[in-house]
Amino acid sequence: MAEELWRPSLDLALHRNRLSPQVRFVQLATIRETGRPAVRTLAFRGFLGETHQLTFATDGRSVKTAELEQSPYAEACWYFHLTREQFRFTGTVFSVGADTSDRALREARIEVWREMSDESRLTYTWPDPGRPRIPLAPFPTLAPDPLEPLPHFCLLVLEVRDVDHLELHGNPQHRWRYSKDAHGRWSGIEVNP
Amino acid sequence: MAEELWRPSLDLALHRNRLSPQVRFVQLATIRETGRPAVRTLAFRGFLGETHQLTFATDGRSVKTAELEQSPYAEACWYFHLTREQFRFTGTVFSVGADTSDRALREARIEVWREMSDESRLTYTWPDPGRPRIPLAPFPTLAPDPLEPLPHFCLLVLEVRDVDHLELHGNPQHRWRYSKDAHGRWSGIEVNP
Repeated sequence: MAEELWRPSLDLALHRNRLSPQVRFVQLATIRETGRPAVRTLAFRGFLGETHQLTFATDGRSVKTAELEQSPYAEACWYFHLTREQFRFTGTVFSVGADTSDRALREARIEVWREMSDESRLTYTWPDPGRPRIPLAPFPTLAPDPLEPLPHFCLLVLEVRDVDHLELHGNPQHRWRYSKDAHGRWSGIEVNP
Repeated sequence: MAEELWRPSLDLALHRNRLSPQVRFVQLATIRETGRPAVRTLAFRGFLGETHQLTFATDGRSVKTAELEQSPYAEACWYFHLTREQFRFTGTVFSVGADTSDRALREARIEVWREMSDESRLTYTWPDPGRPRIPLAPFPTLAPDPLEPLPHFCLLVLEVRDVDHLELHGNPQHRWRYSKDAHGRWSGIEVNP
């Protein structure tokens, strides 16, 4: 559908860049408790069900989880190296923890945990992220149960409201901006790069 | 010097990843006029003189230039693909335009313009970035004078206050945090990844 052209464009970018090991690396910007910006790299963990909402995994003990509870506004920047294009997704993020009462969200959280690598799951067994490292603190080397998420494993869901798509190849370049209105309808215009 | 170990670590990352075409791509997060976060990919344009301040190029007509004037707080996320490590630089950004009275800054601005590619310089001749595209609007195809920056070409300077360095290889991973105090002295600690 014309009003959701950003999604086919993103699917195409994912396909065309599938041989890049970093194809799923996204930078998520949030607001710190001080009102200042923060940004870090996260792995895209797929769309939530049939929606256009982007999911990421995070440790509920991390600073960003607390920050997002205070201010849900976020922007994700996704740069595709092979095709030289950038998507910026603006919206709000909610966190899905072990205590969620929504069945679809509960299942989505478990599914993402199951699809993660042992290497990624292992990091959730480590001591509190961001705290000073204690030299002899135990860092388990055996990955946890792949079927049962650890309690502090959280799914982050980015509800996208605006999309900015920039294609750097071509002269001149091309750039589109898409927005969702209060009724959930998408519209897009081409803007100057 | 021990208190500036992040800089040798960054220099090493730049060297080890020098064969990656994206080695200089950084995501800069800022605050919109609404207080919400924004983040986009920029090319690192070198350190400012002998300092540890990071420079980027921008179009003075862009939204981010106006945003940074209102709120200078920023964070840059720099992910190095080959060595799998991330630096996050937290601080404030100031903009250097054609009207700067500081001689060193004026020269730095001109030097970055000169070192940019024709392809990058050309984008500064295009119509106002982010505005709706007018079908027949002229997009020049001849790059401007490489010796004389266009008036709206701006240098962005990120004054770094805190650095978060995460190495993803290794089990467990390693992460350090560096901070600059009011006297300009750096200190660092290792934290949990």
